[in-house]
Amino acid sequence: MFKVTKTVPNSPARCTTLQLAHGEVQTPVFMPVGTQGTVKGMMPRDLKKEVNAQIILGNTYHLMLRPGAPLMKKMGGLHKFMAWDRPILTDSGGFQVWSLGDLRKIEADGVRFRSHIDGSEWFLGPKESMAIQQAIGSDIVMAFDECTPYPATYEEAEASMLMSMRWAEQCRDHLPVSPQQSLFGIVQGGMYSDLRLQSLEAISSMDVEGIAIGGLSVGEPKDEMMQVLDTLAPHLPHDKPHYLMGVGTPADLIRGVDKGIDMFDCVMPTRNARNGTLFCDDGKISIKRAEFQDDPRPIMEGCSCYTCQNFSRAYLRHLYRCKEILSSQLNTLHNLHYYCALMSRARQAIQDERWNEFRDAFLKRYEGS
Amino acid sequence: MFKVTKTVPNSPARCTTLQLAHGEVQTPVFMPVGTQGTVKGMMPRDLKKEVNAQIILGNTYHLMLRPGAPLMKKMGGLHKFMAWDRPILTDSGGFQVWSLGDLRKIEADGVRFRSHIDGSEWFLGPKESMAIQQAIGSDIVMAFDECTPYPATYEEAEASMLMSMRWAEQCRDHLPVSPQQSLFGIVQGGMYSDLRLQSLEAISSMDVEGIAIGGLSVGEPKDEMMQVLDTLAPHLPHDKPHYLMGVGTPADLIRGVDKGIDMFDCVMPTRNARNGTLFCDDGKISIKRAEFQDDPRPIMEGCSCYTCQNFSRAYLRHLYRCKEILSSQLNTLHNLHYYCALMSRARQAIQDERWNEFRDAFLKRYEGS
Repeated sequence: MFKVTKTVPNSPARCTTLQLAHGEVQTPVFMPVGTQGTVKGMMPRDLKKEVNAQIILGNTYHLMLRPGAPLMKKMGGLHKFMAWDRPILTDSGGFQVWSLGDLRKIEADGVRFRSHIDGSEWFLGPKESMAIQQAIGSDIVMAFDECTPYPATYEEAEASMLMSMRWAEQCRDHLPVSPQQSLFGIVQGGMYSDLRLQSLEAISSMDVEGIAIGGLSVGEPKDEMMQVLDTLAPHLPHDKPHYLMGVGTPADLIRGVDKGIDMFDCVMPTRNARNGTLFCDDGKISIKRAEFQDDPRPIMEGCSCYTCQNFSRAYLRHLYRCKEILSSQLNTLHNLHYYCALMSRARQAIQDERWNEFRDAFLKRYEGS
Repeated sequence: MFKVTKTVPNSPARCTTLQLAHGEVQTPVFMPVGTQGTVKGMMPRDLKKEVNAQIILGNTYHLMLRPGAPLMKKMGGLHKFMAWDRPILTDSGGFQVWSLGDLRKIEADGVRFRSHIDGSEWFLGPKESMAIQQAIGSDIVMAFDECTPYPATYEEAEASMLMSMRWAEQCRDHLPVSPQQSLFGIVQGGMYSDLRLQSLEAISSMDVEGIAIGGLSVGEPKDEMMQVLDTLAPHLPHDKPHYLMGVGTPADLIRGVDKGIDMFDCVMPTRNARNGTLFCDDGKISIKRAEFQDDPRPIMEGCSCYTCQNFSRAYLRHLYRCKEILSSQLNTLHNLHYYCALMSRARQAIQDERWNEFRDAFLKRYEGS
């Protein structure tokens, strides 16, 4: 069940609601990444109550290696295993096995690869990915695809995209349409507009519940990414959710919403938190810097998160220097709260018919004037 | 303000309440250790709401090096710095500088030592320790003492104890009696009964608000520790709290309560948690073991902590194997909850006049029959 609840005149930006097996999702939405069955440093309870995450992401590649699909199934699926009762989206494992480089070999039916943990041999294709994602029990299942490298020649990008389209068809064949699990197809085609449009048309014609845009944020300049989004925006089907995979900075998210994107995921807020980089409306700060040594202020004035309500930059710097676990906990909580609250602010701005002003003011402040 | 609220016939075991600047403490009590201004892996909020810790410990040695006493003072003290509004006890730094071994030299007025972090030179004695603990603003200040090594000859133990007694007097001179900060003296004397009693008499005659027993759990066999407690028990002043420093296992705590001990601290529940060792009434378990791979049960049946209410041993084993931060978080929460709840159960048993039965049943189950 998918419904567009608000649109913006002369813009693809919009609010939607997406009904999934484990609840409703309001978009635009940011999805925290929970690679190995945990969003690093966050108790699921805090992810709900403090961050108000509506949906999180799990990684098929990591979960198939540890704890493994059979255990996942035996334990009643990922929701129960990790005590998260809201929706979960799983990636297909395609991007991660592709990232293994020398450890993987792409074949017609999928990818043969060696585990980065113990070197054991595995095979993952559309059929296997669907079976694992069924064992995981995610609300949204991603089609198995190949991420086209950057840069790629036209021929390479075309061949890769066509293979992904064949694999997407096979995914649909292996995952029956059901209210329990929605299938999202992934648009590929590298940086070539006609390939992107061809891929979008292929995916749109399949019986999938959502459209994802893959193969971006893989090393290309920002303006090439925006160009792909500009190309696709007018052609994205209105009656399906649009998910931009693996993107990005707060500014990327706001620009993405402006191009009609409904859903985002990225490791940036969580990974940066552990490295002491914290997001605020004025840009990001590195908490390790000496200037924060005796700074009694919170990370961001006016932020309602537990970290900002209780702790100074001086304390957070102290925790970071001492390599304390609480440093990762408090920083992660703030960054995820910031990302999720930013999407909530975007939704509100669209509902209140002041999207363009909000977007411009945010970008000006975030990126400096 | 100190009050004995319940005693046990023919036993030194008791319940007391201790009124401190930041609130009341019910004893017997376990105090989680917050070495560097954080109980590792715990948000202060969870330490209150989930663990119900009544009072925590801070380490003067660590805090003087990082973030340092001047910053501590500037930030309004440790309570504000770390967002903990219940009582804090700080050790004197004596034990930690003593543990530095080759990096320290004991002099008449204190200890000259090099920082374990950057090798910088420092001096810590009774005067310095009182000043730092005042900057920290702890509710309970520990006297600066020397921890007598084990084993030690009679002459070594005597000389060390006498020096600690002189230092304790100096601490009282430097820390005025005030409702803001209570001073606890520390009984030393190694494993020699007459030295222990001489030290207890010296400390009891000083104007201190509590009596601590130091120099135990430093490598001696358990029966020697119990012998020291047996020696001291009949002579511990009734009108002051009794604190056994750095002890110990759940069984040690129960035996300590039985010898009239009111307060305990130990890194065991927190450190063991990070190493995957979890406490329950049936003893401790190592969560990394293969037998827990598909075990759907909580760490301990009937435990009301967030970890046990939501997660299986299988999930906790998965987190431990993946070296996830959440592993330390959930394990620490359980272990601290277990320790604090155990003391709550001990208080209840004393109040209900069934202490001996509770003690015997607990030890039988915990240690196996």
